[in-house]
Amino acid sequence: MCRWLAYSGESLHPSALVLDTAHSLVAQSLNSPLGAETVNGDGFGLGWYPMGAMGDGRAGVPALFRSIEPAWWDENLRELTQAIETELFFAHVRAAAGPPIQQTNCHPFRHGRWLFMHNGALAEFHRYRRDLMLELDPELFPLIRGTTDSEVLFHLALTLGLEQDPIAAVGRAIRRVEDAGRAHDVPQPMQGTVAVTDGATIWAFRYSSSGRSRSLFHSIDIPSLRELYPDFERLDTFGPTARVVVSEPLTDLPGAFVEVPEATAVIIGPGGDFRQEPFLAAA
Amino acid sequence: MCRWLAYSGESLHPSALVLDTAHSLVAQSLNSPLGAETVNGDGFGLGWYPMGAMGDGRAGVPALFRSIEPAWWDENLRELTQAIETELFFAHVRAAAGPPIQQTNCHPFRHGRWLFMHNGALAEFHRYRRDLMLELDPELFPLIRGTTDSEVLFHLALTLGLEQDPIAAVGRAIRRVEDAGRAHDVPQPMQGTVAVTDGATIWAFRYSSSGRSRSLFHSIDIPSLRELYPDFERLDTFGPTARVVVSEPLTDLPGAFVEVPEATAVIIGPGGDFRQEPFLAAA
Amino acid sequence: MCRWLAYSGESLHPSALVLDTAHSLVAQSLNSPLGAETVNGDGFGLGWYPMGAMGDGRAGVPALFRSIEPAWWDENLRELTQAIETELFFAHVRAAAGPPIQQTNCHPFRHGRWLFMHNGALAEFHRYRRDLMLELDPELFPLIRGTTDSEVLFHLALTLGLEQDPIAAVGRAIRRVEDAGRAHDVPQPMQGTVAVTDGATIWAFRYSSSGRSRSLFHSIDIPSLRELYPDFERLDTFGPTARVVVSEPLTDLPGAFVEVPEATAVIIGPGGDFRQEPFLAAA
Amino acid sequence: MCRWLAYSGESLHPSALVLDTAHSLVAQSLNSPLGAETVNGDGFGLGWYPMGAMGDGRAGVPALFRSIEPAWWDENLRELTQAIETELFFAHVRAAAGPPIQQTNCHPFRHGRWLFMHNGALAEFHRYRRDLMLELDPELFPLIRGTTDSEVLFHLALTLGLEQDPIAAVGRAIRRVEDAGRAHDVPQPMQGTVAVTDGATIWAFRYSSSGRSRSLFHSIDIPSLRELYPDFERLDTFGPTARVVVSEPLTDLPGAFVEVPEATAVIIGPGGDFRQEPFLAAA
Repeated sequence: MCRWLAYSGESLHPSALVLDTAHSLVAQSLNSPLGAETVNGDGFGLGWYPMGAMGDGRAGVPALFRSIEPAWWDENLRELTQAIETELFFAHVRAAAGPPIQQTNCHPFRHGRWLFMHNGALAEFHRYRRDLMLELDPELFPLIRGTTDSEVLFHLALTLGLEQDPIAAVGRAIRRVEDAGRAHDVPQPMQGTVAVTDGATIWAFRYSSSGRSRSLFHSIDIPSLRELYPDFERLDTFGPTARVVVSEPLTDLPGAFVEVPEATAVIIGPGGDFRQEPFLAAA
Repeated sequence: MCRWLAYSGESLHPSALVLDTAHSLVAQSLNSPLGAETVNGDGFGLGWYPMGAMGDGRAGVPALFRSIEPAWWDENLRELTQAIETELFFAHVRAAAGPPIQQTNCHPFRHGRWLFMHNGALAEFHRYRRDLMLELDPELFPLIRGTTDSEVLFHLALTLGLEQDPIAAVGRAIRRVEDAGRAHDVPQPMQGTVAVTDGATIWAFRYSSSGRSRSLFHSIDIPSLRELYPDFERLDTFGPTARVVVSEPLTDLPGAFVEVPEATAVIIGPGGDFRQEPFLAAA
Repeated sequence: MCRWLAYSGESLHPSALVLDTAHSLVAQSLNSPLGAETVNGDGFGLGWYPMGAMGDGRAGVPALFRSIEPAWWDENLRELTQAIETELFFAHVRAAAGPPIQQTNCHPFRHGRWLFMHNGALAEFHRYRRDLMLELDPELFPLIRGTTDSEVLFHLALTLGLEQDPIAAVGRAIRRVEDAGRAHDVPQPMQGTVAVTDGATIWAFRYSSSGRSRSLFHSIDIPSLRELYPDFERLDTFGPTARVVVSEPLTDLPGAFVEVPEATAVIIGPGGDFRQEPFLAAA
Repeated sequence: MCRWLAYSGESLHPSALVLDTAHSLVAQSLNSPLGAETVNGDGFGLGWYPMGAMGDGRAGVPALFRSIEPAWWDENLRELTQAIETELFFAHVRAAAGPPIQQTNCHPFRHGRWLFMHNGALAEFHRYRRDLMLELDPELFPLIRGTTDSEVLFHLALTLGLEQDPIAAVGRAIRRVEDAGRAHDVPQPMQGTVAVTDGATIWAFRYSSSGRSRSLFHSIDIPSLRELYPDFERLDTFGPTARVVVSEPLTDLPGAFVEVPEATAVIIGPGGDFRQEPFLAAA
């Protein structure tokens, strides 16, 4: 229902990816060729780990900037993404499936040093929202501030151990969604792509109960990209460990972006460490 | 935490009470002498039963206009309250105690033909929010769209029979709040004034667990007011059955407004029918 | 750059045209097949002449509701257009060409009992904005509150006699725009469709300096439409004098909407009076 | 009509002054004891010179974050002022005197590397707004995006040489305001305090035609403040060259803030350089 982008690498102005590429996230907010919806104009969010003389960078708590204005004209978004620098950020543009348009429904969601975002939907969520809410750690229950399925999914993963083992916990949370949905006659409840980070590592997931998830891509490593396109000056913006996971390619350069397979987890660690592994065989 | 106003009587532009009196609700949004907070700038709402050639008036479903802009400068609020006419409306300006400022947290709340609004707070609500949510009719659970204590209180009253017997149901809901709060070591959970309507009758309540509720007043009947102030031309705006219940007096005219006693319900029916009765002895 | 709709006829909830048709104005805000832009998500406005027991209807001052939220999710717009009734209204969804997204840039614009709205642009307006501002009646100069070309065009028409002779004044204003533009090497300054009303009559114009204006359509008369589609129940919503002028057809019914020719004025008076006449031969 | 704060010194999170002091600027937005208005809830703005590995700091173009939400609850303002660091920033909370509440009316205003903000008003500005607009450099005329007197005053100062000699240019601009006002029978047109910066030096002015300006204070130097309050730990936040100019004191510490006299310019250069000089004898 949305588009998102996760970046890890050398310190960068987020505008380089959010505003300045051919199919930047802001461009996708107005026109996303691969999206379930063409327009993603129902709010946006940016979560980043601040850098700077006093900043703790990746070790600290992320900052959030979320707004219900369409990303394509929000002047504060332009200003901010050009002014700040960060080694790791999440950005998200929303196409609401129904829940109200309000700041508390904008991704990414934050808990301590963790960020979470989601593209997709829990099918017929209203039927089993209450069931999932009851499974939340009672300490986490009052922290739910919006009405999205995504925020509940995040807190369910937190309840099930996200901070200890992100891949296992997201897997368990999705299985709980599938159980709850099926108990209410929703055969294929989970749909989407999910990203979480603790500020050091990004975990991205592509999975749906039906086996036909929203699109997801990762960029290839920058040294290989430079070999492919030695004359492409814009690549100078990016350091050697820069990596992006994103709902659809940010450029038309053949080979620059690779599709993440269905039922797959992508892990991007510090220093450009990158790997993929199978994630939940379709249920 | 807020200020509210409920009107029943002859058809009227709401601006007459919301904008045009000395201490109109919009004036109170910037400066409310009797309020727990001076400034009520965290959004507002208007709920009204539309009139007109095709309108069903009091028999129909109310319309809502809610915004997170401060009431004192919202141009749409000025336009709207001067353009529409109605025989019954609720208006509310908010001073948030903590929950986010978003349209879904603005009063009045609506369910079918019912409206509800609240000034006050459920003390330390986060401690027993989950407990109260679990007591909601599961059909009503997914209709909670915001994060306020007030919206939960409304849906609890709906669960407990608001549509059949409003006074009994609001009383039961408050007792449930008190039970839930005390189970979590909150000795005096309920605080405030509440108004509900089905479009024909207004029920207003002043009650707090501590016996010291937010202020509440009702206007005296218009014929008596005219006798007191025969030369006051502004009274020509109001028909003989007009009545207001409001957090604090709208004018400085001595005798125009009468304080509603602690632990009291006020009932204003069609045609100017007015009565008061005791409501829940302090627990 | 935008889409607009003007209605005159029997009293109506604007939602019938703004929300409830296949290609309603709100649907066009997300997807306008004939528009210069696909998405018109940069604010909207509604101007109407209130009805009701106390209302003066067509004789009075119009009310405005304008917002920078995308029309497709603004809940207040839904509520309002379903609650009010009016015999004449203007509605507009905006796709900004550059000026900031702010309420004062949302159409329609109002002056006394007049409303004005525009789809299109004055090419390279920044080059001759100052010149046109200096031609405004100095009394009107301080009333300019936004930054759009459209608001200046409206006040220029007011300066040149809009309230006395709308067709002549709009014509003179467009000629002044063309003169001013050409003095700054802009060969084809005027582009667009314009609507003005005094609350009784609607004047709509399709004209551009290049002779290739934004699209404009009018509905055929309701009795003829009923003959064409005797079984189409939705037509029962509309009285015999109902007429719409709109940027693109609201339905796919063949024959229901007729294109307004280039360089043409459409006049819709009270009681269904309808005529077209040539307007400014292309310069 | 507003409250503002200008900081120069060691790199700092703006939250230290905007959020975290007893009478922080955000606290003043809800309650400003010395203000012409108690509530400054009609938008706010932050302008800062970004720091960081790639940042040019004081040498670069400032970033702006402006919003029409009341400062006291804007979550993005909290996030942002805690996340960024800067050696020089302007912050402003607005109490609108009349012009619409919109982002383009929020201070500070920017031109190239310059920022400008204002507390006060040009009396009866609508009478001579046109005259002043005509005196603007025609290149600057189309850059006016809002409707405030302050934005016109800034562009008038730019027209009159702000970038070459700020003190002389602001003086000339104020004299032009006084001439224009008096030509329209406004005897005391200028009122207020003004701050401008090029990113290296701050120039602050207190002046009104009547000789009774809005309040203005500057902090004393940090080493002296530490001598006065050796045990006040919060002072550790501030480096030895930190200086603030602000509409009213940020703390109740006696001696920490000194009033700027009427008709005075304050100049704060890099490295803590500080001086005051007379500015325009009252006219």
